[in-house]
Amino acid sequence: MARYTLLKTEGTAKRGQYETVHGLIQTPVFMNVGTAAAIKGAVSTLDLETIGCQVELSNTYHLHVRPGDEIIKELGGLHHFMNWERPILTDSGGFQVFSLASLRKIKEEGVTFHSHVDGRVIFMGPEESIQIQSNLGSTIAMAFDECPPALAAREYVQASVDRTTRWLGRCKDKLNELNNAEGTVNPDQLLFGINQGAVYDDIRIEHAKAIADMNLDGYAIGGLAVGESHEQMYHILEKTIPFLPKDKPTYLMGVGTPINILEAVERGVDFFDCVYPSRNARHGHLYTRRGRINIKNACYAKDDRPIEEGCNCPTCRRYSRAYIRHLMVSGEMLAMRLCVLHNLYFYNKLMEDIRSALDEGRFAEFKKDTISGIESGFTE
Amino acid sequence: MARYTLLKTEGTAKRGQYETVHGLIQTPVFMNVGTAAAIKGAVSTLDLETIGCQVELSNTYHLHVRPGDEIIKELGGLHHFMNWERPILTDSGGFQVFSLASLRKIKEEGVTFHSHVDGRVIFMGPEESIQIQSNLGSTIAMAFDECPPALAAREYVQASVDRTTRWLGRCKDKLNELNNAEGTVNPDQLLFGINQGAVYDDIRIEHAKAIADMNLDGYAIGGLAVGESHEQMYHILEKTIPFLPKDKPTYLMGVGTPINILEAVERGVDFFDCVYPSRNARHGHLYTRRGRINIKNACYAKDDRPIEEGCNCPTCRRYSRAYIRHLMVSGEMLAMRLCVLHNLYFYNKLMEDIRSALDEGRFAEFKKDTISGIESGFTE
Repeated sequence: MARYTLLKTEGTAKRGQYETVHGLIQTPVFMNVGTAAAIKGAVSTLDLETIGCQVELSNTYHLHVRPGDEIIKELGGLHHFMNWERPILTDSGGFQVFSLASLRKIKEEGVTFHSHVDGRVIFMGPEESIQIQSNLGSTIAMAFDECPPALAAREYVQASVDRTTRWLGRCKDKLNELNNAEGTVNPDQLLFGINQGAVYDDIRIEHAKAIADMNLDGYAIGGLAVGESHEQMYHILEKTIPFLPKDKPTYLMGVGTPINILEAVERGVDFFDCVYPSRNARHGHLYTRRGRINIKNACYAKDDRPIEEGCNCPTCRRYSRAYIRHLMVSGEMLAMRLCVLHNLYFYNKLMEDIRSALDEGRFAEFKKDTISGIESGFTE
Repeated sequence: MARYTLLKTEGTAKRGQYETVHGLIQTPVFMNVGTAAAIKGAVSTLDLETIGCQVELSNTYHLHVRPGDEIIKELGGLHHFMNWERPILTDSGGFQVFSLASLRKIKEEGVTFHSHVDGRVIFMGPEESIQIQSNLGSTIAMAFDECPPALAAREYVQASVDRTTRWLGRCKDKLNELNNAEGTVNPDQLLFGINQGAVYDDIRIEHAKAIADMNLDGYAIGGLAVGESHEQMYHILEKTIPFLPKDKPTYLMGVGTPINILEAVERGVDFFDCVYPSRNARHGHLYTRRGRINIKNACYAKDDRPIEEGCNCPTCRRYSRAYIRHLMVSGEMLAMRLCVLHNLYFYNKLMEDIRSALDEGRFAEFKKDTISGIESGFTE
C-alpha cells in the first residue's frame, strides 16, 4: 500500500512523496507533535490544517497511560478521536520509557517501569508497544527500541543495539499479525524501524545494514539530539544514511532547529519531528527568517508590526507584536496559542520552501541563504 | 449617531436594534467578556466571529494597569489592538476598583487605590475613567460609578447613589469634551449611565428617574448579582426598568445564568454580560438546553457524542465528549478552549433564539420551554 517515490535529488538531499492510506505526504516533512492527542497551546486539529501540517505525531506511552489505547480503539481509533483525517505517526513509547518513567528494569522481553502519572507498574515490550499502536490505528507505527544515553559505553551500546534489532523482528511479526486480525482499526498500518548506536559509527552502520535487510516501510535514526554536539549528529547522518534504503523514507527523530533541519535534509533526511517550535512558543521565543525574537522584550510594547513581516500565518495575518506581548505579559492563554500557531507555521512553511527549492534544483543556494538569514540575528 | 430602534415588544420584553459606528447590534444581546483585551481560554477575535459574538466587552481598569490605555491609543485604539471590528463596550473600572483593588479611599473627586498587579497607587474618578475609555476608543463607554455592597445600609447607599449621579454628570461632560477634541480615537463614543441603589426600591426608582433625564445613549442596572437573591434581582428589575427610557437600551450588568437572562429579557433588558460561560467552561461545566454537564465525569470517558447533540458550535461540530474529557483530565490547554467556545456559543445562540422568539411573538412559550428543559436536568 505505502510507497515512497523519490521525485528528485540534489546531492544527497531527497525530494519525495509517500503514499499512505490517510493521504499523500510530501517530503521532506516536519511532523507536528501532539503528544497526548493534542498540540500544546490550545491548538486544535482544525488549526493544524490552517498552518499546513501534513502529519501529526502522537505518543504511544502517553496515550496508553491516559486515556488508554483500548478506549481509543473502542472509539474508532486516534484519527476519529482527535478528528484528524491526515496521516498520524505514533512513536513507540521507547524514548519515553527511558526518559520519563522511573525504576525501569530492562529484560529481553521488554521493560518494566512505573507510570509517571500514577506510579502504577507497566510492562512494555515490542509486542505491547505494537498492540497499543495498532489499537490507536496510526498511519505509521514506530518500532519499540532502547534509546541508550548519548555517552553510554561502547559495550552497553552494542548489547542494547543487538537487543533493539531482535525487538524489531518481534515488532514486525506482531504488526503483521495484527494487520491481518479481525477488527483492526487500520489494517494498512506501516512500520518504521529505528537505527541506534549512540555516537559509534561502526555500530550505527552495522545496525543500519541489519535493519535495511528487514524490508520495513521506513527507517528512523534515533538516539540523536540527546546530548551530543551538532557536528557529531551531522557526522552520524553522513555515515549512517548511505546504508539505509534510498527507496524508503528516512526519519530523523526529535530534531531540531531550522538549521539542523536544513543540514539533515542535505544529508538525505525525509521526516522530522521536534517539540522546539511549540515549547519555544510557550516561552515567547518566536522564529523568524532572521533568527528568534523574545516577544516579552519591552521593545515590542508599542510595535504594531506582525511577528514577521510577510508571514502568512493566522497570527501574523491578524495580530501585532504589541498585542501578543501584552497577552504574554498578562498571562493570557491566547498568547500561547498565537505563538504556537506562528512557530508551527514557520516550521511547516520552511519545509514547503525546502521542497520548492529541491523541486527547482536550488536547495544548496536556499540552504545557504536561509542559514545566513537566521544567523544574521534579529536586530529590529 | 447611535439609535435604538424598538422593533417589537411582547409584554415588557423588547426586541430591538442599536446602530453604532462599529455596526448594528441586534438585541437582546449577550456581550462576550474579554477583560484584558482577550477572551479567557485562548479564544481569539477570529473565534468570536465564528461563535456569533456581536459585542466584545473589555475592562477599563485592567487595560489601564496593563498594557496602559495610552499605548493602546498610540496603536490606534482597542479595535485595532485586538483586531476586532465589531462593537466593544468598556466598563468604567468602577466595579473592579471596588472589588479587586485594595486600600481604596473614596472622595467626591474619585477613588485612590492600589493596583492589584504591582501595588502602585492609582487615582480614578469620572474624568480619569472617561479619559481612559476615550483612549481605548470603545464603541460604548460606561459611566464611573460606585457599586456599594448588596447588603449596605440605606444611608450609605443613598449617599453613594447621590455621588454616582454627580459623577455621571461629570462623565457626560468629559466624554462630550473628548469626543470633540483633536485626535480622539472614536469621536462617536457613546455613554451609558448606571442605575444603583442596592435592594432599596425607592432609591433605585429615584435614581432611575434622575439619570433618565440626562439623555444618555443607554442605561445600565448595576449592583445586582452581588449577593442578593434571584427573586430580589427580578423584583428590582420590575420596579426600576419602567422608569428608564424605553427608546434607549437597558443593560443588566454581570448577569447571569441562562434562566436569569430569560427572566430579565421578559422584564425589558436588552444587553447582558457575564463571566459564567467562560469561567464554568474552564472547570469543565458545560451548558446544554437540558442543564449543565461536568465533562470531567467518568461517564463521558467513552462517550462519542458531542457535548450537545445538534449544537453547531466549532467544538460540537468536530469533537466528542470523550476527547474533551481526555483533554481536560490531561490538563491540555485545548480543553479550555473547546469548552469556552461551546459555552460562549451556547449563550450567543440562546440570545439569537430569544430574538427569533420575540420576532415571532412566541417569547413567553420559548421562555417556558427553555426553562423547563434546563430544569429537567441532564440525565444522559
